[in-house]
Amino acid sequence: MDNMTLHILGCGSATPSLRHLPACQVIEYRGRLMMIDCGEGAQLSLRRYGLNMNRLTDIFISHLHGDHCLGLVGLLSTLSLQQTGGTLTVHTFPEGARMFRQMVSFFAPYLSYNLLFNEISPKGCEIILDDNALTVKTFPLRHRIPCVGFRFDEKPKERHLRGDVANFYGIPPYMRRAIKQGADFTRPDGTVVPNDRLTLPADPSLSYAYCSDTLYFPSLADDVRDVTLLYHEATYADDNLAKAAERFHSTASQAARIALAANAGTLLLGHFSKSYNNEDRHLAEAAAIFPRTLLANEGLALPLASELD
Amino acid sequence: MDNMTLHILGCGSATPSLRHLPACQVIEYRGRLMMIDCGEGAQLSLRRYGLNMNRLTDIFISHLHGDHCLGLVGLLSTLSLQQTGGTLTVHTFPEGARMFRQMVSFFAPYLSYNLLFNEISPKGCEIILDDNALTVKTFPLRHRIPCVGFRFDEKPKERHLRGDVANFYGIPPYMRRAIKQGADFTRPDGTVVPNDRLTLPADPSLSYAYCSDTLYFPSLADDVRDVTLLYHEATYADDNLAKAAERFHSTASQAARIALAANAGTLLLGHFSKSYNNEDRHLAEAAAIFPRTLLANEGLALPLASELD
Repeated sequence: MDNMTLHILGCGSATPSLRHLPACQVIEYRGRLMMIDCGEGAQLSLRRYGLNMNRLTDIFISHLHGDHCLGLVGLLSTLSLQQTGGTLTVHTFPEGARMFRQMVSFFAPYLSYNLLFNEISPKGCEIILDDNALTVKTFPLRHRIPCVGFRFDEKPKERHLRGDVANFYGIPPYMRRAIKQGADFTRPDGTVVPNDRLTLPADPSLSYAYCSDTLYFPSLADDVRDVTLLYHEATYADDNLAKAAERFHSTASQAARIALAANAGTLLLGHFSKSYNNEDRHLAEAAAIFPRTLLANEGLALPLASELD
Repeated sequence: MDNMTLHILGCGSATPSLRHLPACQVIEYRGRLMMIDCGEGAQLSLRRYGLNMNRLTDIFISHLHGDHCLGLVGLLSTLSLQQTGGTLTVHTFPEGARMFRQMVSFFAPYLSYNLLFNEISPKGCEIILDDNALTVKTFPLRHRIPCVGFRFDEKPKERHLRGDVANFYGIPPYMRRAIKQGADFTRPDGTVVPNDRLTLPADPSLSYAYCSDTLYFPSLADDVRDVTLLYHEATYADDNLAKAAERFHSTASQAARIALAANAGTLLLGHFSKSYNNEDRHLAEAAAIFPRTLLANEGLALPLASELD
């Protein structure tokens, strides 16, 4: 199975604390790194956790609050000092692209690599990346300012050709690709061997959804249905239910309700308010609703698997 | 003696490393905090070292390279979340003021305090702050882009009135201020008691100069003459003498030559390149020229005194 790992670089909320850094995470997939949000300190966290910033291909910015993007210009500047070339795409709303372009041309006027801005809609519901292996879609969240979530879906994979069976039937190499993609095999005498005798099922496609920052609204579950791993903000626990709504944030139990309704594989809570000394309460309240709940923490590296234990 | 303490929050150079953060320091003086440069992570370092950001009155930006100012907007935003009011002045070149104003109005459009920009000349040689206790002057440095140093000078202090002598002569309270400022005392019978029999000398005025980033040039010593404490960049040791000149930086021994020529009290080295695993070499090379040399480090809190041991 292809390896997809989520690295948490920051899972705090607006005010950074000594416990949690502002929002930043990295998906490591087939040798590339894709960053989601880029709070202040992102470049240092990459270094701390041994993630080579030269492998970054994309940075996705969910919304334009400072705690989700004020590390961007520092990271882009430092990357330029490393003189490694390549292309990096920042996916952000048009007004973000305008502001970041200006900041970059001020603080790092001579970039040593190709920086692209992919202007995405603040309304969500777009495919913003689509390659051989992966699609990334946006979906709308409900926050004080426009905000989108990101959903990463691995494309369907090839079935596994059984080596013993392939040898028995003498399947020539040039036909193997088609068989892995589902074709039957027609023998020289005209008899057909059905695909399911030649192959084992493909590995399941992994998927990841990022929801931060957002008010609780039940229909969000539709956009994150059946994801392998759901990251959902849980700024507060239920002791601050009213404050959560007022500030367009969620509680841990609300996040769990989304995970349950969406049939998520695993729920990862983050974006914790600095007003808590620990997140025991968040975990307990969420797990009462959705048992397969984990707490994010800086440095966590979570391999995605279709059945996370 | 009034207490003046220098706090080092970051003493690395352009690329942040796990050993040193980008440039940032704080002068704590009579209950106020004045920040010099504001690299990424400044707000977190304030928290880490227990320096209450609500006590910040001024932020001085030496030049507009990102490693000296990319923490500014995050700090200004977080300060706004704290709703404590007051006034904060950012001293920066006109083009910095333009850029920071734009960034602040984008990321923190509704500030809860009064933010002022004092536009200072990139050529230096100005008094940019002058109050009852302190003056701050700029002086030119030589870097790849315009860059100034900052010199903080305590104003001359009052002499100490000797209590026993004041009682002996029956000096009335309303005359004491004048005597502390140097007046003689005329007794009712017309005889004059000279000031030096009534008072002890004033405490020496403390002074601090910040020189980062700069090429080595000997006349810099004139601008930092006789300072109590000189912070001078030492990006490199002498193994990188040519590179230092090429990049408009200094070596530790060059910093020591400035300290010696300026008759500084103590030299503090900083702005270390990430290419060194430690600064033993910087210290040895500088101390060979100017023995009263110290190495900066994150978390260092150095009280200024006229005779630092």
